[in-house]
Amino acid sequence: MNTIGVVTSGGDAPGMNAAIRGIVRIACSKNYRMLGFIKGWDGLLTNSFVQLNSRSVSGILHQGGTILRTSRCPEFLQLEAREKAAETLAINGVDGLIVIGGNGSMQGALELSKLTDTQIVGIPASIDNDIFGTTETIGFDTAVNTATDAIDKIRDTASSLERMFLIEVMGRTRGFLALTVGITAGAEIILIPEVKFGNEDLFEYIKEFRERGKRSAIIVAAEGVGDNQRLSCQIEESVGAEVRLSVLGYTQRGGSPSARSRYLATLFAEEAVETISEQKKSRVVVLQNGEIKSIGLEESCKTEKPIDLRVLKLARVLAT
Amino acid sequence: MNTIGVVTSGGDAPGMNAAIRGIVRIACSKNYRMLGFIKGWDGLLTNSFVQLNSRSVSGILHQGGTILRTSRCPEFLQLEAREKAAETLAINGVDGLIVIGGNGSMQGALELSKLTDTQIVGIPASIDNDIFGTTETIGFDTAVNTATDAIDKIRDTASSLERMFLIEVMGRTRGFLALTVGITAGAEIILIPEVKFGNEDLFEYIKEFRERGKRSAIIVAAEGVGDNQRLSCQIEESVGAEVRLSVLGYTQRGGSPSARSRYLATLFAEEAVETISEQKKSRVVVLQNGEIKSIGLEESCKTEKPIDLRVLKLARVLAT
Amino acid sequence: MNTIGVVTSGGDAPGMNAAIRGIVRIACSKNYRMLGFIKGWDGLLTNSFVQLNSRSVSGILHQGGTILRTSRCPEFLQLEAREKAAETLAINGVDGLIVIGGNGSMQGALELSKLTDTQIVGIPASIDNDIFGTTETIGFDTAVNTATDAIDKIRDTASSLERMFLIEVMGRTRGFLALTVGITAGAEIILIPEVKFGNEDLFEYIKEFRERGKRSAIIVAAEGVGDNQRLSCQIEESVGAEVRLSVLGYTQRGGSPSARSRYLATLFAEEAVETISEQKKSRVVVLQNGEIKSIGLEESCKTEKPIDLRVLKLARVLAT
Amino acid sequence: MNTIGVVTSGGDAPGMNAAIRGIVRIACSKNYRMLGFIKGWDGLLTNSFVQLNSRSVSGILHQGGTILRTSRCPEFLQLEAREKAAETLAINGVDGLIVIGGNGSMQGALELSKLTDTQIVGIPASIDNDIFGTTETIGFDTAVNTATDAIDKIRDTASSLERMFLIEVMGRTRGFLALTVGITAGAEIILIPEVKFGNEDLFEYIKEFRERGKRSAIIVAAEGVGDNQRLSCQIEESVGAEVRLSVLGYTQRGGSPSARSRYLATLFAEEAVETISEQKKSRVVVLQNGEIKSIGLEESCKTEKPIDLRVLKLARVLAT
Repeated sequence: MNTIGVVTSGGDAPGMNAAIRGIVRIACSKNYRMLGFIKGWDGLLTNSFVQLNSRSVSGILHQGGTILRTSRCPEFLQLEAREKAAETLAINGVDGLIVIGGNGSMQGALELSKLTDTQIVGIPASIDNDIFGTTETIGFDTAVNTATDAIDKIRDTASSLERMFLIEVMGRTRGFLALTVGITAGAEIILIPEVKFGNEDLFEYIKEFRERGKRSAIIVAAEGVGDNQRLSCQIEESVGAEVRLSVLGYTQRGGSPSARSRYLATLFAEEAVETISEQKKSRVVVLQNGEIKSIGLEESCKTEKPIDLRVLKLARVLAT
Repeated sequence: MNTIGVVTSGGDAPGMNAAIRGIVRIACSKNYRMLGFIKGWDGLLTNSFVQLNSRSVSGILHQGGTILRTSRCPEFLQLEAREKAAETLAINGVDGLIVIGGNGSMQGALELSKLTDTQIVGIPASIDNDIFGTTETIGFDTAVNTATDAIDKIRDTASSLERMFLIEVMGRTRGFLALTVGITAGAEIILIPEVKFGNEDLFEYIKEFRERGKRSAIIVAAEGVGDNQRLSCQIEESVGAEVRLSVLGYTQRGGSPSARSRYLATLFAEEAVETISEQKKSRVVVLQNGEIKSIGLEESCKTEKPIDLRVLKLARVLAT
Repeated sequence: MNTIGVVTSGGDAPGMNAAIRGIVRIACSKNYRMLGFIKGWDGLLTNSFVQLNSRSVSGILHQGGTILRTSRCPEFLQLEAREKAAETLAINGVDGLIVIGGNGSMQGALELSKLTDTQIVGIPASIDNDIFGTTETIGFDTAVNTATDAIDKIRDTASSLERMFLIEVMGRTRGFLALTVGITAGAEIILIPEVKFGNEDLFEYIKEFRERGKRSAIIVAAEGVGDNQRLSCQIEESVGAEVRLSVLGYTQRGGSPSARSRYLATLFAEEAVETISEQKKSRVVVLQNGEIKSIGLEESCKTEKPIDLRVLKLARVLAT
Repeated sequence: MNTIGVVTSGGDAPGMNAAIRGIVRIACSKNYRMLGFIKGWDGLLTNSFVQLNSRSVSGILHQGGTILRTSRCPEFLQLEAREKAAETLAINGVDGLIVIGGNGSMQGALELSKLTDTQIVGIPASIDNDIFGTTETIGFDTAVNTATDAIDKIRDTASSLERMFLIEVMGRTRGFLALTVGITAGAEIILIPEVKFGNEDLFEYIKEFRERGKRSAIIVAAEGVGDNQRLSCQIEESVGAEVRLSVLGYTQRGGSPSARSRYLATLFAEEAVETISEQKKSRVVVLQNGEIKSIGLEESCKTEKPIDLRVLKLARVLAT
């Protein structure tokens, strides 16, 4: 009987449990033995795992977080750590390892794949949606919904008090979450790291805005844009109007996964097990042109995912 | 100045307002005059409309229903009615008409397009997701989430009382909603009209199921499957266990649109206005292979949308 | 060390887990030994229980359903069954038994208390809110919110299509849930079993309603009112307008408990343990005049809870 | 025909619209003329109002914010401003003015009542719940639910990554919101301004906590406690473990009101109109001992609302 390992790594994302459930049930139906490594790469360094079967993943489809727990694991940047992980895979006879995580985890998976014969397959799960080759990562849709709901609520106050709000959403160094949320929440302005803006232009734009009679406004800014606390003060001073800062924070990472995050997780799970049974090595599962498939892990890790600036332009038209 | 009309027709779907907002704001930025016809085809029969500008669509992005209202309009099956509608378009100098609605509305749009020089462009909005050529319709994602949330709640009772539930979801004659919800809610059994099943086989399957120790179970059935009230009684009798029927009903049609339904509505709106400014006739906007574009309305109306039976097979594996 | 048993009985209600958690943690802090009987009265008939400590109730505060599971247990109406239960309590040295459940469970608790020296303390948990002596039961607020959210969604369709909806909410033989939901969802008409209405008067009222120009309307009807399917057909015929029936069903019983249901469950838990440590027998914990306390179980069981008809009158004023 | 004015003042709270709807419909049924002053006290200073009838308040029951808009109005602290407001009331023949707002608005209402013959009646609406004499203010229950939901989500990450979170909730100078949310979200520690704590004691408590094996923890802190950013850094240093700060912020103020906030708003509205028709002056509507009634506005304004420290003690027991 062949053995598949699964690990969730890095920051958690809603839908990781749905992916684990899918992998375990599909793999069990194909008679694989399933091992779940605990606490991300840590579990591979310390050889800490649980055996999983169809029953062990009951009742987790709708739960946020990850039952395997996760960790940031800076040691994994060291060669020795990764060699230790490769050894753990060998000791336990792991034929394929499925790594569920974000950008950093995919990089780790790629490096690990160079030291082992175990097939490594990545499943992109991250609210940042910053992995090349896939339109969407597991958890992104949930985070977009959470942030959108939060902004819908803030807009009640913005309208009632005729105030401006600067709302910081997550996304690490990238603007995918901010851009999508900006559209779905109907933001008047969207600030993302991929598009540099001059402060003066921004202030002018806001002033113009207010002169046309729009008193309340929502500015959605990616965390990657810089110091949003400072920016909101600068806007206040230049424009002469109150600006409230709201940092949406960690709620964006948690919560029951949206239907779409569950669906994507389930299809990704199927493709990942399929990829292993086809003996493909160093792959990452993606949604590309509306289709679920796998591509080379190296290609995905080495390429920066482009952002669609047409959407940003559209947001400007909608804000008029 | 050219004129675009917009109308929402048939059953409402969450995100119709987001589409209206997008169309109006984008069209206004291109200097079109915008008319909103009231209450579906009725508005075209009675020449009843309002003029719309960017302000008229403020604060509607997150609202369910449609500010233009809608109606079922059986008269529209008559040639005379459609001729009257064509006349209304001519009288008001409408260069392009955007029809937001489901399957029936697209049929109506196609028939109307044969009687008028006005460019007719459809935008698929329906919780049934049964329009050929598009992976997804506006409102589908919202309905999937609403049904999934409802089933998550029912599962609490199912588990606590160890009961079976037969849950009927919408979808008219098709199983798209049931199939997706079945996956996202983790249903043990999914019944759709596209796949005939023998009652005896179903009963056997359930008995087997229960013998393996699973006492509670969720059966998701499309409304198109038939008389689910009767089916639940038959299961009770054959299997010798209580089955509760829950018909999710009209909540699936309403509510604030999900982020994805808003996003799709906005991109569809852009493509629809674009299609009109490119002078294309009789088109329908679609999401195809991950890309937003338009295809021929006739092709879309004349072809039956296939359902992905691989997903149904996957559901069976997941239920083990 | 003294021993407290806890059991959840009858239909489940959101917040039962919050009550279990509260009881266990508070009782453990007072050095009680805690036993959780499984599957309602069944667990007392079959001597089936688990020992509980603070850790066993981690992570359940926000979960619907009940980790102890529950059942309808018709045998418990028989004296022999209750004698068996009393025996189970004696065998295990249970000093106090906390029964979490609705009306029927309180009746069972009362009967059991006549056969045992174990102190019996009831905690009212039911979405029906039909237990005398307490303003509110655990789970009621959650059910009100769930039904209100559902009707908010249906209203989108009602308004867009200008339709009447008859919405059946739960409540068994009583109208507490329907009355409160009628207010919070802004129903145009509320039908409860406590107030008989003539069909003709109802039809007249609706006609008048429509003549004043209100086309869409929400009628909230308690399940205890009778055959709502038939009623909706009768309205259609008499009034000459479409009426859609929507039976909200089992979603009302499930879901993560609202903040208030969790809060009430926690305070009820504290009072229940307190009541046991004060050696009081045959009590039920209540919220009365804004205060948490306990009253005699017999008084509560023998008295019918009155409904506040002033609120119904208010609803009529609001519907104008 | 007598005239009633209504104004929403200060920060907005979910359910203000439900209160406005209730007041207008109930007052209209009693043949009052209804005026809605715009933007809080501002509307009284500038004589800016709209006439309201039953139709003007259609479709607002479930909406956050306030259709009358609101403002902070520091000028109102000046006698001249309040004299101007009194004049506005006189000019328009306003017999009774209903002021919907929080603590500061009630103070303003009291001061205004000293300068006018118009009956002034306050309705407590505030997420802070800090008004003496009432168990609950409109909007409080909604804010508690919003914060609880947010923390439920953050707990997913806290558990998966085994991290501590310090979560700041609103409440201005008081701890009502933090205390209730601490219970409903199952916080391990609750910090409120009413109970001074030594930092060293706090650090010790956390260390102990972690030594018992609890790795993840939620600390809920009221904004009134002080600099929570600094506190989270101090904990990190002293305890030697990562602490993430999350400031829940303005989402707590907005959103569709919970069922309970709508219900309370509706009953408060009824009592307020009743109080005016009974010619009572300078009153505030309250929920006291489970009963809706009115008390003297001066008594309410001059007394500090006590916080229930027994609940804080209970929270500590639950955290064990």
